[in-house]
Amino acid sequence: MADPIFHKVSAPQSIKELAQAVDAEIQGDENITVHDVAALNEAGDKDISFLDNAKYKDDFKNTKATACIIAPKMVEFAPKGCTLLISKNPYKAYALIAQIFYPVSTPPANISDHAVIAKSAKIADGCCIEAGVVIGENVELAENCWIEANAVIGDGVKIGKNSRIGTNASVTHAIIGEATRLYPGTRIGQDGFGFAIDPAGHVKVPQLGRVIVGDHVEIGANSCVDRGAGPDTIIGDGAWIDNCVQIGHNTKIGKGCVIVAQAGIAGSTTLEDYVVVAAKAGIAGHLNIGMGTRIAAKSGIMSDLPAGSEVMGYPAVPIKQFMRQVVALKKLTKPKK
Amino acid sequence: MADPIFHKVSAPQSIKELAQAVDAEIQGDENITVHDVAALNEAGDKDISFLDNAKYKDDFKNTKATACIIAPKMVEFAPKGCTLLISKNPYKAYALIAQIFYPVSTPPANISDHAVIAKSAKIADGCCIEAGVVIGENVELAENCWIEANAVIGDGVKIGKNSRIGTNASVTHAIIGEATRLYPGTRIGQDGFGFAIDPAGHVKVPQLGRVIVGDHVEIGANSCVDRGAGPDTIIGDGAWIDNCVQIGHNTKIGKGCVIVAQAGIAGSTTLEDYVVVAAKAGIAGHLNIGMGTRIAAKSGIMSDLPAGSEVMGYPAVPIKQFMRQVVALKKLTKPKK
Amino acid sequence: MADPIFHKVSAPQSIKELAQAVDAEIQGDENITVHDVAALNEAGDKDISFLDNAKYKDDFKNTKATACIIAPKMVEFAPKGCTLLISKNPYKAYALIAQIFYPVSTPPANISDHAVIAKSAKIADGCCIEAGVVIGENVELAENCWIEANAVIGDGVKIGKNSRIGTNASVTHAIIGEATRLYPGTRIGQDGFGFAIDPAGHVKVPQLGRVIVGDHVEIGANSCVDRGAGPDTIIGDGAWIDNCVQIGHNTKIGKGCVIVAQAGIAGSTTLEDYVVVAAKAGIAGHLNIGMGTRIAAKSGIMSDLPAGSEVMGYPAVPIKQFMRQVVALKKLTKPKK
Repeated sequence: MADPIFHKVSAPQSIKELAQAVDAEIQGDENITVHDVAALNEAGDKDISFLDNAKYKDDFKNTKATACIIAPKMVEFAPKGCTLLISKNPYKAYALIAQIFYPVSTPPANISDHAVIAKSAKIADGCCIEAGVVIGENVELAENCWIEANAVIGDGVKIGKNSRIGTNASVTHAIIGEATRLYPGTRIGQDGFGFAIDPAGHVKVPQLGRVIVGDHVEIGANSCVDRGAGPDTIIGDGAWIDNCVQIGHNTKIGKGCVIVAQAGIAGSTTLEDYVVVAAKAGIAGHLNIGMGTRIAAKSGIMSDLPAGSEVMGYPAVPIKQFMRQVVALKKLTKPKK
Repeated sequence: MADPIFHKVSAPQSIKELAQAVDAEIQGDENITVHDVAALNEAGDKDISFLDNAKYKDDFKNTKATACIIAPKMVEFAPKGCTLLISKNPYKAYALIAQIFYPVSTPPANISDHAVIAKSAKIADGCCIEAGVVIGENVELAENCWIEANAVIGDGVKIGKNSRIGTNASVTHAIIGEATRLYPGTRIGQDGFGFAIDPAGHVKVPQLGRVIVGDHVEIGANSCVDRGAGPDTIIGDGAWIDNCVQIGHNTKIGKGCVIVAQAGIAGSTTLEDYVVVAAKAGIAGHLNIGMGTRIAAKSGIMSDLPAGSEVMGYPAVPIKQFMRQVVALKKLTKPKK
Repeated sequence: MADPIFHKVSAPQSIKELAQAVDAEIQGDENITVHDVAALNEAGDKDISFLDNAKYKDDFKNTKATACIIAPKMVEFAPKGCTLLISKNPYKAYALIAQIFYPVSTPPANISDHAVIAKSAKIADGCCIEAGVVIGENVELAENCWIEANAVIGDGVKIGKNSRIGTNASVTHAIIGEATRLYPGTRIGQDGFGFAIDPAGHVKVPQLGRVIVGDHVEIGANSCVDRGAGPDTIIGDGAWIDNCVQIGHNTKIGKGCVIVAQAGIAGSTTLEDYVVVAAKAGIAGHLNIGMGTRIAAKSGIMSDLPAGSEVMGYPAVPIKQFMRQVVALKKLTKPKK
């Protein structure tokens, strides 16, 4: 059970309602009521759990959960008496059910007396602005924005409705979409790293663009998105970016892209839609990464990639080739008998 | 000598007191008094220095320090007239002596008029809360906590006695132990990176756990520790984490682990006690890293490691094998004569 | 055209004035007036653009810019009617011209009522101190410093004239030069990662140095520079450091060095002048990197490098050798026909 100090659970739900909400098939007792979600190995009498990663199959076999969301192929491993919700995408079904039990609660509208807000700023109804927030001239916040403590919103920034800016975050020179969330300590819109190298003193290139962030985007804690040098830096709708990620100036991140922690995208590179960049991978500047490309963790990308690529290593090669390299290196270095 | 603007030195100490405090053997003049610590090449008449890294042996030979902490095998290189403190662990002995000359001074208890503290928060005696701090509902700070300027402590967070939270840090959904220190800009307890991938829009998985940080832990500047998805994320007692480190949700970091700058640990991975992860290394999710394992800088770990492993590379292999790979690659690519 | 909400353009300039300002030769109509800068593919009737990266030559051929800054060898590709500014260093010339159109405007002197400033701090004329800033005891700010919202300046810190400290940044135990800029969320001067490893509890080594930052330095968003353990950590004049960079204690960064995003320099390493460290590269501790060395992205440096080195890989080797390794690995793993 989640610690009630931090997480408030909603009312119990019938298994039928849950199955309907996530378009799953019920197998087992259709009349049970579920009170909470829980991990397989922690779930008890009134909990619903899920199995997505086969690594945890044994936990499934032994779970005491009253109900469990699983893929069709896992039915045979079900413990006796456990009601099953059978779904093609058990993790998504779990996510939706967990959202039912733990809806994100926007705090009531409130503007802290300890926030400092320019008179020219326009704050729509329903916004919650916490203590220590500083909001610059001509900022526009749409309905129900949530600006957390000590965040700083620079002059002219616009933020769409239902968006949330985390504690101690900094946003400048940016247009932010709807239902988008910036986590604590994100840095959005500072100057990109643009200068002419000169031993007499590098010469700064004014960074004259913006950052345009779409709707339903998440940008993780302490991640940075620099504004464009001339063109804008763009983060497409529904992109999910993890913590400590660096996005250089003029970069275009397509719709639904996923960029995992500590990855970095250098300036003027384009990620087409649905690209996945795993943790710590780096992509050089001025490249085009085709739609749906998947880049393994810690890879280094030095050239364009066609749509649907799956690559690994530095310089990155197709994953199968990378694995052959690993085998070849092992052979080369096997101690002689 | 340390700049007195930033560092206040305590009263002089007799070499006998110092030797006793660190369980070292004195060789040389036992009646000297020491006024300060200093590096070998900067130490003067009344300073004590130390030699730990053999790379600096020449500095030791030429030091003007009045006393020096060294390992037994270094005695033969001692400059004439230098009193020696002979210790099996000279670096630890130096650390303790430096703490005698420069004790960490907790500021006097004080709650700034410019902090914003919820009425339901419980602040024990001896706490120092600086300007710009924001403290949420039902927060509990034990004795002598030091919350630095502009830090934000979210609703329900508990912090043990003598702990210190750095400037501009963010702590939410977390229980923090005693004598633990979070450096400036750390982000503790935000949602982990959990969602079901879906082209129609990734579906967020509510992150229902917490972050539990032990006693005597240090977490470096701008590092991030995400809260668990269901289970908690746990940082064990005495773990030391450097700057810009990323710790994913559900991760368990054992006692005394050391994680160097820019390393990253993906979700649901366990580090048993005393694991050392060098800089920029990455560990994939859902793995178990055995006790005392040492992972070289920039390595990438893709599978479980037994206790006591020493690995390097990506995918990581035993260090000796990595070195053979390096040699083999050199041979392969030697220009033909 | 830059979005006027975020970027105010100055008055139009004659092409002759611009050519003179950047020491370029005019080819074409010498009587035109330029109103703005723009990218080649976005420039219109009254804009000046530039070509620096040959990758964008086609954009140059098709540009509608009224004037363009180019290298001599690109003259033959010029579109008809485009006035050319011919320069040996077109990117630098563009930078200077963009600065003419978009001068950095220091805000008028002002100290926010919502800043918290110790009475002992000395604030020179012309400073702009924004809301939420916290300034400690005995801080000294020279003329025209700009301290952005929610930044924290610790006791005793000195900052030279015309310097700018970004939103939510933290500066402690540091002396900052003139015309230097720290971006949002930078962490300067916290304790380095120094301790004696001990299973009974690691023993902290007091960090008794400072951070000394030179003039005309830039340190990017969320980057960290730890203070020295005894000696100071030093960032030389004119060094440019990108986002999410980690600089360990006692490190010396030479004049004009360039360190790209997510790179890390371990403790006690020296970079001589004009070293370039590309993104995500790591340099081990206690090394000396010779003047003008260039380190490719994602490299790992484990030993000293002589001046003028150009290296890549992990462990890093000369770039040509790295490329031979890549070819050799490809051959080894080519599927047999």
